[in-house]
Amino acid sequence: MTVSAADHLWLHFTAMGPYADGRAQVPTIVRGEGTSIWDSHGREYLDALSGLFVVQAGYGREEIVEAIARQARELAFFPVWGYATPPAIELADRLAALAPGDLNKVFFSSGGSESVETAWKVAKQYFKLTGRPNKTKVISRAVAYHGVTQGALAITGVPRFKHAFEPLVPGAVKVPNTDFYRAPEFVADDEKVFGRWAADRFEEAILAEGPDSVAAVFVEPVQNAGGSIPPPAGYFERLREICDAHDVLLVSDEVICAYGRLGTMFGCEKFGYQPDIITTAKGLTSGYSPLGAAIISDRIFEPFAADGVSFGHGYTFGGHPGACAGALANLDLFGREDLLGHVRRNEGALEHTLRRLLDLPIVGDVRGNGYFWSVELVKDQHAKTPFTPADCQRVLRGFVAPGLWEAGVYCRADDRGQAVVQFAPPLISGQREFDRIEQALRSVLSDAWTQL
Amino acid sequence: MTVSAADHLWLHFTAMGPYADGRAQVPTIVRGEGTSIWDSHGREYLDALSGLFVVQAGYGREEIVEAIARQARELAFFPVWGYATPPAIELADRLAALAPGDLNKVFFSSGGSESVETAWKVAKQYFKLTGRPNKTKVISRAVAYHGVTQGALAITGVPRFKHAFEPLVPGAVKVPNTDFYRAPEFVADDEKVFGRWAADRFEEAILAEGPDSVAAVFVEPVQNAGGSIPPPAGYFERLREICDAHDVLLVSDEVICAYGRLGTMFGCEKFGYQPDIITTAKGLTSGYSPLGAAIISDRIFEPFAADGVSFGHGYTFGGHPGACAGALANLDLFGREDLLGHVRRNEGALEHTLRRLLDLPIVGDVRGNGYFWSVELVKDQHAKTPFTPADCQRVLRGFVAPGLWEAGVYCRADDRGQAVVQFAPPLISGQREFDRIEQALRSVLSDAWTQL
Repeated sequence: MTVSAADHLWLHFTAMGPYADGRAQVPTIVRGEGTSIWDSHGREYLDALSGLFVVQAGYGREEIVEAIARQARELAFFPVWGYATPPAIELADRLAALAPGDLNKVFFSSGGSESVETAWKVAKQYFKLTGRPNKTKVISRAVAYHGVTQGALAITGVPRFKHAFEPLVPGAVKVPNTDFYRAPEFVADDEKVFGRWAADRFEEAILAEGPDSVAAVFVEPVQNAGGSIPPPAGYFERLREICDAHDVLLVSDEVICAYGRLGTMFGCEKFGYQPDIITTAKGLTSGYSPLGAAIISDRIFEPFAADGVSFGHGYTFGGHPGACAGALANLDLFGREDLLGHVRRNEGALEHTLRRLLDLPIVGDVRGNGYFWSVELVKDQHAKTPFTPADCQRVLRGFVAPGLWEAGVYCRADDRGQAVVQFAPPLISGQREFDRIEQALRSVLSDAWTQL
Repeated sequence: MTVSAADHLWLHFTAMGPYADGRAQVPTIVRGEGTSIWDSHGREYLDALSGLFVVQAGYGREEIVEAIARQARELAFFPVWGYATPPAIELADRLAALAPGDLNKVFFSSGGSESVETAWKVAKQYFKLTGRPNKTKVISRAVAYHGVTQGALAITGVPRFKHAFEPLVPGAVKVPNTDFYRAPEFVADDEKVFGRWAADRFEEAILAEGPDSVAAVFVEPVQNAGGSIPPPAGYFERLREICDAHDVLLVSDEVICAYGRLGTMFGCEKFGYQPDIITTAKGLTSGYSPLGAAIISDRIFEPFAADGVSFGHGYTFGGHPGACAGALANLDLFGREDLLGHVRRNEGALEHTLRRLLDLPIVGDVRGNGYFWSVELVKDQHAKTPFTPADCQRVLRGFVAPGLWEAGVYCRADDRGQAVVQFAPPLISGQREFDRIEQALRSVLSDAWTQL
């Protein structure tokens, strides 16, 4: 009956034209096992993106499947709207125990955008409850991606994802991110000086908006869009200081960086800062079932525990019993196989393997942390000449992306900021997978250089 | 380790005070089978709310569990971001075939709020693409609930769920709903006249805002908040006319009313109108896994299929392969057991059974459709005297809700509008369940009358 996969399935973040008129066929993934996926033609690929920063423990993990099925047989669904279920209680306990400091209250969602919306709404009501009702604004960073629902989208710093949907929630302000490779000249010599400068941009924005109007800053430990941009030394220490000085909540958006992506359970641990709220999703179940969670500090929760107060917010599927059971099995597996230790022991090798590519003239920068890396492409290594939009269309999306797919590596060619290729392999990956990534990249990027 | 279920689990839409200091224990649901749930003390309850308008096929359906587990073993996760998976393709095909008219494009999400955000964003971009960039506003109805993310929340018509979170997305305007029981005096005599009046409020709002500024109206087939408020005869016919006249999209928000709740696959079929977009979630999988879908007409999709155009929107977990497999198994079960026919054959009996309660002086109105009913409580049946906020607190939430729970019936006491008790039993329910609801209500409401 179906002529094409795209007859009725509207793909996300995808130009549908070529599929709608049959010029192209949608690639269809049918199977996954370990770090590999297979398409409908039986071809195998290395999943070097963990689906979409999701499949931490790899595909085909029977322990997680069994936990989900067992729970579905026992109690397939129940909402946490005034009621609880054993897996939701147990997972909330587990996350509170794992999260640093006084991050002890868990508000479940079904995904990253919902977690980010939750955090912003918690921040807004927190300040209403504590007598500062005008503190509603959020400051986040240029090019940063924080989701697509219209609150989360306001926080997102990618203008072209927003234009068609304006107006969004008012009061979302942007400051520069921590891309040291493209730091302004006057702070480009010293990463620490740059980091201080970048963190201070938050204070500048808070003062410009008025501290009495700002509720929170939203930052990823390592910023995804723009190409896994790590924080300079001292950056988060200074940011925490600024938040404390102006009574602004620090929200660590860890939809990508939590659950081992950086070799720690939460991304903030890797860089030693204490957020007021952590937002998570993706890796919590390794993707075996949709689930997200905002983890909130006791300090922020406290006014919500007053008599007659209620946080008027909830998601039918937030804290879904099967998804929570899957998350518990996933975390069990993290422990049993020491996935965090495995990432920490191997992240240096991944970095080292990718840095070899710097001998290619098209490679400008290799950056990241843990199992979360990007390779930035340039037209001139010395001058750091970025790809133009036309280069991105023709070479990055038209040649590099299909070339890597052809070479058997699923990853992400991205130009929300500069042109980058992103890698985030499952946490069970090792040198064999790193080499496969490097070899595919080396071959495709060498050819791409001749196309520029 | 845990003293209480609420030590770390922040319950949704719940005043946490009584749990936070140990005055109360969170009721914990541990098992479900058919139309029954059991709490942690081993007590059985009739689930007269299908979880939260979700568990259409009932608990413990091995076919759905097996389908989810089988898919998780084969391919546990893959995003529909530029790629497809067999269950996402098949479910999109199936939904397009089931949905009325030219509703043929399926954009998946993980829940209702995400589906509503999708629909609003589709509407905004549609008008940008077709040369009417200022058409961005949405008109919806008083007391209507459309979700909690900050775009969906703007559409929601329950002021007290919004105050703590303002400002929200601008441009969301409200008109009266179709509560005939509390119709304004000048249109209270004739339901058809009332319906025409209520539909015309949309045109009034469109003209007041300016048709060039209005993108869509969002309406539920039967409005949930306020107490399952059905549409008067002719209402949707007139609304469709108004939308056509002013080039405004008609979005049928069927997060509750789709998938058999009214005895039809989609709520709009029950009332014979053709929407431009249907938003769904909840019952699509009977709750066995989180999933939602916005179903969009070919006409609205068309400009998105132009070369170089992309809908910059997506959810990592939207169209999750396991959830789609669960939905397919759920829809198979709908077919095999003729659940739609079962509801249509029995909705009259449910209505008749509940209407018996009108002999109680506290019952003002019994209204609904299909397997979706509400009983409105009043202080004087003849004068229709509504509960005050204090009555709602003391009698509805303090006596009726715990009384029904005590009597073994899980349902919803709600006062987002007037004081109502809501019922939406699993679609497999029959007279035995209806009688159990009626008997519990009769006993508890009789006692409640003495408390007023």
